[in-house]
Amino acid sequence: MKDLLVNNAFAISMVLAFISLTVSGFLIAYIKGKSKGNERMKDIASTIEEGAKAYLQRQVITISIIAGFIFFLLMWFYGTNTSIGFLLGAFCSLSAGYLGMRVAVMSNVRTTNAAASGENFALRVAFNGGAVTGLLVIGLALLSVGLFYKYTEDMTSLIGLALGSSLISVFARLGGGIYTKAADVGADLVGKIESSMAEDDPRNPAVIADNVGDNVGDCAGMAADVFETYAVSLIGAMIVGKLTYGTESAVIFPLVLGGISVIGALLGILYVNLTKGNASGILLGAVVISAITSAVLYFPATQYLFEGNGNYPVINYYYASLVGLIMTAVVVVITDYYTSTSYSPVRKIAEASETGHATNIIAGLAVGQHATALPVGFIGVAILLSFHFAGLYGIAIAVVSMLSMAGIIISLDAFGPITDNAGGIAVMAGLDKKVREITDKLDAVGNTMKAVTKGYAIASAGLAALVLFGSYVEELAVQTVFKSMPFSLKDPHIIVGLFIGGLLPFVFTAHGLDAVGKAAGSVVREVRRQLKEKPGIITGKERPDYAACVDIVTKAALKEMIIPALLPVIVTVGVAWALGPVVLGGVLVGTIVTGLFVAIAMTSSGGAWDNAKKYIEEGNHGGKGSPAHAAAVTGDTVGDPYKDTAGPAINPMIKVVNIVAILIIPIFFK
Amino acid sequence: MKDLLVNNAFAISMVLAFISLTVSGFLIAYIKGKSKGNERMKDIASTIEEGAKAYLQRQVITISIIAGFIFFLLMWFYGTNTSIGFLLGAFCSLSAGYLGMRVAVMSNVRTTNAAASGENFALRVAFNGGAVTGLLVIGLALLSVGLFYKYTEDMTSLIGLALGSSLISVFARLGGGIYTKAADVGADLVGKIESSMAEDDPRNPAVIADNVGDNVGDCAGMAADVFETYAVSLIGAMIVGKLTYGTESAVIFPLVLGGISVIGALLGILYVNLTKGNASGILLGAVVISAITSAVLYFPATQYLFEGNGNYPVINYYYASLVGLIMTAVVVVITDYYTSTSYSPVRKIAEASETGHATNIIAGLAVGQHATALPVGFIGVAILLSFHFAGLYGIAIAVVSMLSMAGIIISLDAFGPITDNAGGIAVMAGLDKKVREITDKLDAVGNTMKAVTKGYAIASAGLAALVLFGSYVEELAVQTVFKSMPFSLKDPHIIVGLFIGGLLPFVFTAHGLDAVGKAAGSVVREVRRQLKEKPGIITGKERPDYAACVDIVTKAALKEMIIPALLPVIVTVGVAWALGPVVLGGVLVGTIVTGLFVAIAMTSSGGAWDNAKKYIEEGNHGGKGSPAHAAAVTGDTVGDPYKDTAGPAINPMIKVVNIVAILIIPIFFK
Repeated sequence: MKDLLVNNAFAISMVLAFISLTVSGFLIAYIKGKSKGNERMKDIASTIEEGAKAYLQRQVITISIIAGFIFFLLMWFYGTNTSIGFLLGAFCSLSAGYLGMRVAVMSNVRTTNAAASGENFALRVAFNGGAVTGLLVIGLALLSVGLFYKYTEDMTSLIGLALGSSLISVFARLGGGIYTKAADVGADLVGKIESSMAEDDPRNPAVIADNVGDNVGDCAGMAADVFETYAVSLIGAMIVGKLTYGTESAVIFPLVLGGISVIGALLGILYVNLTKGNASGILLGAVVISAITSAVLYFPATQYLFEGNGNYPVINYYYASLVGLIMTAVVVVITDYYTSTSYSPVRKIAEASETGHATNIIAGLAVGQHATALPVGFIGVAILLSFHFAGLYGIAIAVVSMLSMAGIIISLDAFGPITDNAGGIAVMAGLDKKVREITDKLDAVGNTMKAVTKGYAIASAGLAALVLFGSYVEELAVQTVFKSMPFSLKDPHIIVGLFIGGLLPFVFTAHGLDAVGKAAGSVVREVRRQLKEKPGIITGKERPDYAACVDIVTKAALKEMIIPALLPVIVTVGVAWALGPVVLGGVLVGTIVTGLFVAIAMTSSGGAWDNAKKYIEEGNHGGKGSPAHAAAVTGDTVGDPYKDTAGPAINPMIKVVNIVAILIIPIFFK
Repeated sequence: MKDLLVNNAFAISMVLAFISLTVSGFLIAYIKGKSKGNERMKDIASTIEEGAKAYLQRQVITISIIAGFIFFLLMWFYGTNTSIGFLLGAFCSLSAGYLGMRVAVMSNVRTTNAAASGENFALRVAFNGGAVTGLLVIGLALLSVGLFYKYTEDMTSLIGLALGSSLISVFARLGGGIYTKAADVGADLVGKIESSMAEDDPRNPAVIADNVGDNVGDCAGMAADVFETYAVSLIGAMIVGKLTYGTESAVIFPLVLGGISVIGALLGILYVNLTKGNASGILLGAVVISAITSAVLYFPATQYLFEGNGNYPVINYYYASLVGLIMTAVVVVITDYYTSTSYSPVRKIAEASETGHATNIIAGLAVGQHATALPVGFIGVAILLSFHFAGLYGIAIAVVSMLSMAGIIISLDAFGPITDNAGGIAVMAGLDKKVREITDKLDAVGNTMKAVTKGYAIASAGLAALVLFGSYVEELAVQTVFKSMPFSLKDPHIIVGLFIGGLLPFVFTAHGLDAVGKAAGSVVREVRRQLKEKPGIITGKERPDYAACVDIVTKAALKEMIIPALLPVIVTVGVAWALGPVVLGGVLVGTIVTGLFVAIAMTSSGGAWDNAKKYIEEGNHGGKGSPAHAAAVTGDTVGDPYKDTAGPAINPMIKVVNIVAILIIPIFFK
C-alpha cells in the first residue's frame, strides 16, 4: 500500500486535480438547473453578462497581442518549451478568470431568485458559484504545472509558465481593477452625489457597468491572481527542491500537498451544501474542515515521501507544512479584526467621520498603516520557523501549503461579487424588499470574506516572492560565473537595489490610482451627457444607454492598464542590463518589502473605510444621510481604488519582477 | 601658508562656527531694533509668544525627565563621557529649536509692521529672523561635535552626543508636529467649517494656538531636526574616517567642510540683505551663492588635507563633496516641481477637486507616491557615485557636504512660519488690506520654501542614516566577536530584519496620525464649549479664552508624543536582545528604505494638497467657496498631519534606530 502510494504520488495528485475540475463541472450544472426568475431579472442579468463578456473578450485580445510579442521573444532566447510554457501559463490564468467570471454572472440572478425562497438556499447557490472558481483555480494550477513538468522535465520551461501566469495576472488585476473601480466611482459621483440616486438605481446610466465591474474585477481578477500565486509557488518550491535536494520526492512534494488539499476543499464545499444556519458560521466551518483535512493527510504524505530522504528529520517537513496552514488562519483572523464592523479600527473611522471628510480619511489611512504590523510580524515568524525546520525548502513548503487552501478561500471570495450583483438585480428588477434584505445580509458576509481573502492573497504572494528570490540566488549560483555572491547589505549596490525595488510598488500603485481617476472621469462625463441630453432618464420615461458606459470603461481600463503592467518588466530588465545581478538582487527584495507593506496598508484601509460606511448606515453616528455618512462615503470612495485596484495588483507585480529576474540570468549574466 | 592652514584646519573650523553664532547674535539685535507696530499688534504678538514659551517650557520639562532617565542608563553602561555627550546633544538640539523659535516669534510682528513699508523690507526682516536659526543650527552642530571630540577623543562618546540630539529631535518633531496640526485642524474644523469664520479670525478661540503651532512645529521642530541630522552626519563621517583611515585629516575633514560652508551661508545672507526685487529670485540667489562659495573653497581644502593621505586620488574626495552639493540642488528642484502651483502635479489635484472630496484625496495620494521616484533615484545615483569616488567615506563626505548647506536652507525654511504668523497678526490687528497682501505674497513664497526644505531634510536624513548603518557594520567588526558578518539577503534573518525595520515607519507614522486626530478632537470640543457658553464671542463682544486652547493642545501634544517617540528605541533594543545582530542589521536598513519612501510620499502629498487649495483660492476651478474649494480644504486638512507631523518625524526616527544599534553593540554582542 505504502509503496503503491509513493510510486504513484504524482499520478494521484494529478487525478485529484482532475477531480477538482470535474466537480466544478457538476457545480456548474447545479447552478444552471436553478431558475433565473422573471423576465425583468433575466433581462438585467443578460445585460450584465453581455457587458462582462464584451470586456473580457476585448481584454483577451489586448493581452494576446502583448503575449504574442513576448512569446516570440521567449522563443528567440529560450526555445520552444519555455515559450510554450509561457502560453500555457497565460492561457490557464486567463481561463481561470474567464470561466470563474462566466459562472459568477450565471449565479448572480439565480441567487436573487433563490433569495425569495430563503437565506440558506441563496447562500448555497452563491457559494457554489464561487466554489466553481475555487476548484478551477486549484485544479488548473496543479494540472498545468504537474503535466508540463512531466512533459519537459525542465525548470526553465516551468519559469516560462510562471511568467505567463504572473504577467497575465498583472494585466487581469489591473484591467479588472481599473474597470470595476472606475465604474463604481463614476457611478457614485454623478449618480449618488450629483443626482441623489440610490445604489443600483436603474436610472443611472453607469449602473450596469458598475455591476459588470464586480465580476471582471473582484471575480476574474482575483481568480487570475490566486491562480498565479499558486502556480508560481508550486514552481518556486519545485525549483528549490530540485536545486537543494535533487530528488524526485522533493520536486513533486509540493504537487502532492496540493492534491491532498483538493480533498479538503471538496469536504468543505460539501459541508456548506449540507448544513443550515448562520451564513458566516457555515463558511467559517468549511474553512476549518478544509484545513483540518489537509493537516491530517499531510502527515502520512510527508512520512512516505521523505523517509530516508532529505537533510532534516522527516517530521520537520510536516511542521513546515503546518506553518503554512496556521499562517492562513492567522492572516484571516487579523484581516477580519482590522476590517470588520465588530472591532475598534472600523468603529474609530466611523467615529472620526463625525468631524468631517478629512478626519475620516486620516483615521482610515492610519488604520491601514497599523494593519501592516501583525501580518508582517507573523510572516516574519513563519519565515524563521519554516526555515528553522527545513531551510529554504521549508519556507517553500509553508508557502505551498498556505496556497493549497486556495480552493476553499477562493470559493468564499468569489461568493462576494455574486451576492453583490444579486442585490443589484433585486433592486433593479423591483423585487420585494425581503429579497433585498437577504441579499444585503449575504453581501455583508461577502464583503468581510473579500477583505479577508485579500489579506490571504497578499501574505501568500509575499512569501511566494521570497521563494522566487531564493530561486534567483540559487539559479545565479548554478548557471553563471557569479558562483556565490554575498548579496551583502554592506554593499552600496544592494542598498541602491533595495531603493529601486522599494520604489516599484509606490510608483506602480500611483499609476493604478491615476488610472482609476482618469477612467472614472470619462464615466462621469458620459453620465452627465446622457442625463442632460435625455431628461426622460431621471423621470424614468427613457431608458439610459447602459452600453455606452460599459464601452467607455472597457476602453479606458484596457488603455490605462498597459503602462503600469509593463513597468515591472521594464525596470527589471533595465536594472539587469545597466546595473548587473547584485543590484538586481537588491531590487527583488526591495520590491517584496515595500510591496507587502503598501499592499496590506491599501487593502486594509479600503476594507475598513467600506465597512465604516456600512456601520454608519446601520444607524450609528447619525445613520444614512447624516454628515458623518457623507464623510464615510468619501472614505469608501477613496478606499475603492486602494483595495480593489492598486493594492491587490501588487501581488502579481512583485512576482513578475522576481520571475523576470530568474529568466534573464542566462542572457545578462553569463 | 598651506602648512599653517593644514595644521590649524580644526581650529579654523571652530572659529568659523563661532563666527556663525556671533553673526546670529547681530541679527537678533537687528530684529530687536525694528518696531513692533501699534498696541494691538504688540498685544497679539505677546499672546503668541507666551503660548509658544509656555509650550516649549513644558516640553523641556517632559523631555528632561526622559533624558534624565536615559542619562543614568548611559552613565551605568558607558560611563561619564558618553552620558555627558548625550546631555550635550540633547541640550544643543533643544537650544537650536528653542532659540530659533524665540527669534521667530520676535520677528513675526516686526515683519507685519515692516510690510507696511514695502515688500523688500518685510522680506529682509522675516529672512533675517530665519537666518538666526540657520546660523544657530550650523554653529551649534560644528562647535558641539568639534569641541566634544577634542575633549574626549573618543568615538563612543560622540555616539552619545548623536543619541542625545536625535532622540530629543524625535520628541521635538513629534510634539511640535502634533501641537501645530492639532491646533490647525481643530481651529479649521470648528472655525472655518462649522462657524464659517475666515482663517486667523480673532473670534476663533483656537486662533492663537494655531499661530503658536506654526512656531513650535515648523520652526522649533525643523531646527531641532536639521541640527540633529547635521550633528549625526558629522559624527557618522568622523567615525567612518577613523575606522577606515585612522588619520586625523580624515576625521576632521567633515568639520572643515562644515566650517567652510559657514562662509557660504554668510555670503548668502548678505546677498538677501543687499538686494532688491522678486522675493523668490533673491532667496534662490542666496542658495546659489552659498553653494558656489562652498564648491570653490572645498577644492583647496581637499587638496591640502588629503595630499599624500587616503586610498583614492585626492580629487576623488573633492568630487564626493560636490555630489552632496549637487544633490541639494536636485532635491530642491524636484520637490518644487511636485509641490508648486506652477506645475502639473498640483494642478491635477486642483482639477480632481471639481469631482469632489474623494477624487481630490486620491489624486493627492497618487502625487505623493509618484514624488518618491526621482528623489530616491537620485539618492541611488549619489550613493553609487560617491562610493565609486571614495568608498563608504565618500558617501559620508557627500552627506556632510549636503548638510553643510543647512545654514542657508534653514534660513529659508524658518522664514515660512514667520511670514505665516505675520499675516495672522495683520488680520487679527485689523491692519490695512495692503499689508496682508504683502504678507500673503511672502507667505506663498515661504510655503514653497517649507516644502522644499522638507525634501532636503528627508534626503539628507536617509543618506545620514546609511552612513550610520555603515558605522554599525564597522563597529560590529571592530568591537565584537562578529568579525565580518555577511549581512546577506540570502539569510532569512536579514529578510525578517528588513520586514521588522520596514514596519517601523508605517506604525510610527500611524501613531502620529492618530495623535493629531485625538488632540484635534480635544480642541474641537473646547472651541465648541466656548462658543456655546459665551455667545458673545461670535458677535465680537466677548474675548475668547485663547489660553484654554493653548493649554489643551500643549497637554495633548506632550502626552501623545511619548509612545511613538520611544517606539524606535524599544524595537531596536528588543530586536537586539531577542534576535541578535544579524536581524538588527536588517532592521536598520529596512527602516531606512521604507522610511525614505513614506516620508517623501507624505510630505509631498501634504505640500501638493496645500498648494492645490491655494491654486483654487487664486480663482481657478471656481475659486474660494466653490465645491472644488471645499474638496481642496479636505485635502489640505488630510495633508496637514502628513506633511507636518508624521512625515518629517521619520527623519530623526530612522537615525535613532541606527544610533541605538551602534550604542548597544558592546552590551548585547560581546
